[in-house]
Amino acid sequence: MVEFSQNLRSMRSSEIRELMSMAARPDVISFAGGMPNNSLFPIEEIDEIYARLPREVKQIGFQYGPTHGYPPLCRALKEYLQRKGLPLEGHELMVTTGSQQALHLVTRVFLDPGDVTVTEDPCFIGGIAAIRAHQGVLRGVPLDDHGMDLSLLEKALNQSNPLPKLLYLTPNFHNPAGILYSRERRQAVLRLLPGRDLVLLEDDAYAELYFADEDRDLVTPLKALGPNPVPICYTGSFSKIMGPGFRLGWLLAPADILKKCELAKQSIDACTPTFPQVIAHEFLTSGKLEAYVARIRREYARRAKIMLNGLSLHMPAGLDWNHPRGGFYIWVKLPPGLDATDILKIAIPAGVVFINGKTFDPAGQRNDRLRLAFSHTPEDKIEEGIRVLAGAIRKCLAE
Amino acid sequence: MVEFSQNLRSMRSSEIRELMSMAARPDVISFAGGMPNNSLFPIEEIDEIYARLPREVKQIGFQYGPTHGYPPLCRALKEYLQRKGLPLEGHELMVTTGSQQALHLVTRVFLDPGDVTVTEDPCFIGGIAAIRAHQGVLRGVPLDDHGMDLSLLEKALNQSNPLPKLLYLTPNFHNPAGILYSRERRQAVLRLLPGRDLVLLEDDAYAELYFADEDRDLVTPLKALGPNPVPICYTGSFSKIMGPGFRLGWLLAPADILKKCELAKQSIDACTPTFPQVIAHEFLTSGKLEAYVARIRREYARRAKIMLNGLSLHMPAGLDWNHPRGGFYIWVKLPPGLDATDILKIAIPAGVVFINGKTFDPAGQRNDRLRLAFSHTPEDKIEEGIRVLAGAIRKCLAE
Repeated sequence: MVEFSQNLRSMRSSEIRELMSMAARPDVISFAGGMPNNSLFPIEEIDEIYARLPREVKQIGFQYGPTHGYPPLCRALKEYLQRKGLPLEGHELMVTTGSQQALHLVTRVFLDPGDVTVTEDPCFIGGIAAIRAHQGVLRGVPLDDHGMDLSLLEKALNQSNPLPKLLYLTPNFHNPAGILYSRERRQAVLRLLPGRDLVLLEDDAYAELYFADEDRDLVTPLKALGPNPVPICYTGSFSKIMGPGFRLGWLLAPADILKKCELAKQSIDACTPTFPQVIAHEFLTSGKLEAYVARIRREYARRAKIMLNGLSLHMPAGLDWNHPRGGFYIWVKLPPGLDATDILKIAIPAGVVFINGKTFDPAGQRNDRLRLAFSHTPEDKIEEGIRVLAGAIRKCLAE
Repeated sequence: MVEFSQNLRSMRSSEIRELMSMAARPDVISFAGGMPNNSLFPIEEIDEIYARLPREVKQIGFQYGPTHGYPPLCRALKEYLQRKGLPLEGHELMVTTGSQQALHLVTRVFLDPGDVTVTEDPCFIGGIAAIRAHQGVLRGVPLDDHGMDLSLLEKALNQSNPLPKLLYLTPNFHNPAGILYSRERRQAVLRLLPGRDLVLLEDDAYAELYFADEDRDLVTPLKALGPNPVPICYTGSFSKIMGPGFRLGWLLAPADILKKCELAKQSIDACTPTFPQVIAHEFLTSGKLEAYVARIRREYARRAKIMLNGLSLHMPAGLDWNHPRGGFYIWVKLPPGLDATDILKIAIPAGVVFINGKTFDPAGQRNDRLRLAFSHTPEDKIEEGIRVLAGAIRKCLAE
């Protein structure tokens, strides 16, 4: 048998896949899926868009498009990003096949085997996968309620042998930690960067999902907070503001970096599907997106509240969790000695599933957390699921 | 500035990109685009499908799907492939983001830097790009009218230092050579393989586009011609039978290989867009696809005939070309001493564009050919374009 290549020999399937398939069982209440709620998709809006698409635009949607994206969508996205304060001068934009592909491309373009990326601990699993796919090494920095721990970040950035090539972070409604970086922490992170030979990869998939209008300014990306002290590659996604099934993300990066990413994308899928891009362009420019996002902010805020109430009501003492101001996640800290996988083994037969903490640990070890997504679960099952989960935790505590 | 990774440092943008952007100028008659004709897309069929999609199916289409593909589409594709005689036992199927992604995944899974792939000479540019993206080395074997030259293929397979890990070929309506492998040549290639430690990558993007019904059996894939002497990874595409803008391809491969490809795909784009998969599933299972493909076979056959007539009528003596039995391409051989890029430099200002031969040379050198695609050009411009091109060639001959 022909041997697999080096990078594939070292890759293993993650536990998360099995959990996700379990989460699909109809009798299980799932807090595992970090995905939008099926009942909240903008079906009527897209129906309207489809019905009005001129034949010639459909033809364009059925055809190959440029590798960097469908030009009208690129233009509309640039305006959208400019309104958020993001810099366009010297930068280029590319539409990617989900923002996952943007993470893959940036890590591909910079990482040789053994190269170090400083990441958050916990860290988005798709970020971990992209770094590992290029045989990169993760150097985790713990998160507190306001962002990365600054002194540990500085230490991780200074650690040589080797110095890091990338710094990867998710300042808005972190997956899994659910936190929003404070304005001060964002600026403090940026102040650590001048003079360093690294690239900041800023993953901003959840920015639009703030629950309270007064938080609108808090989600301003690091990239938009003034002159970039190092090159910043900024990624975003239509997955949370339209639907992940369209697999549309974007990458805004300094022009020379974007050109390399575009080159890498050519051999990966030639171009992102045009037809979804045509629809996204109409969604973005018709004003439908804004009205839709305003609606789902309220919906997810309500679901978060139901879960928080359930947690207060049912959980035993000794647990702790964040109170999310947006996004999809509550990150539950267990009392000392409890292991998330042990709880999972009791919770699944009892009818509840979640993701265990070590899935998000850059080192794949620490397992004192549960990630509970309130986004995908049917609203009327959330409290019931929390009650069952609390029972599983009590059982573990008693053992 | 942070250095780019090894594999990106060695990659360069190909000339073809510039040509393609030129081909988009409305005043230029383009034979460059190897893509379907915009006027032939199944717009009415897809409109009908969209109009009848139940709300719950749309919801699924808006959501993430499994990495290996939307399950109803996977089932329908397996039946479709089984009807073509392809083996399913011991094999798995995955939907990919265009068949380009299938090529990327198979080369990613097997090639370490310096590993050799035996390819056709000329070779599909997307195959070359996938191999080069993994720092693979190409070992080209010339094509004649019936497929790879057998004695040179045997020599290329036997050449050690190193022995090849992959054999990549496109037996049906080759891009750019336009040829269809004969039944005998297919079997002779397979007879060379037993006992070799390599994987055959069979790229079958054009199989459905035979012009005459009597050729229906000639397009049988190598993978379907009996027990596979080595592992065969078989790729196909909806690009030519529905539309490239959906970016839907597939990979049928031995289960252990497919599992590795799926693992690699997770970090690349997590899953292929679900929404296009939902539509493709309906297109494939409704019977609409068969009726549509029967229609476009006639359309492309007529366009090929118009181009062949134009070539006979206008070209000077000393040129040679294939008479395609399907697909999109005519591969024109120039008289000794003429260079395709020199012709291009005269042809473009005169209003015609094509792709020069060296784009498809695994060594990037030989330039005594033109690839003329008859698929994308408006039908009433084909003869005019050939007349102008013939003028450019005469001018070169006179210099």
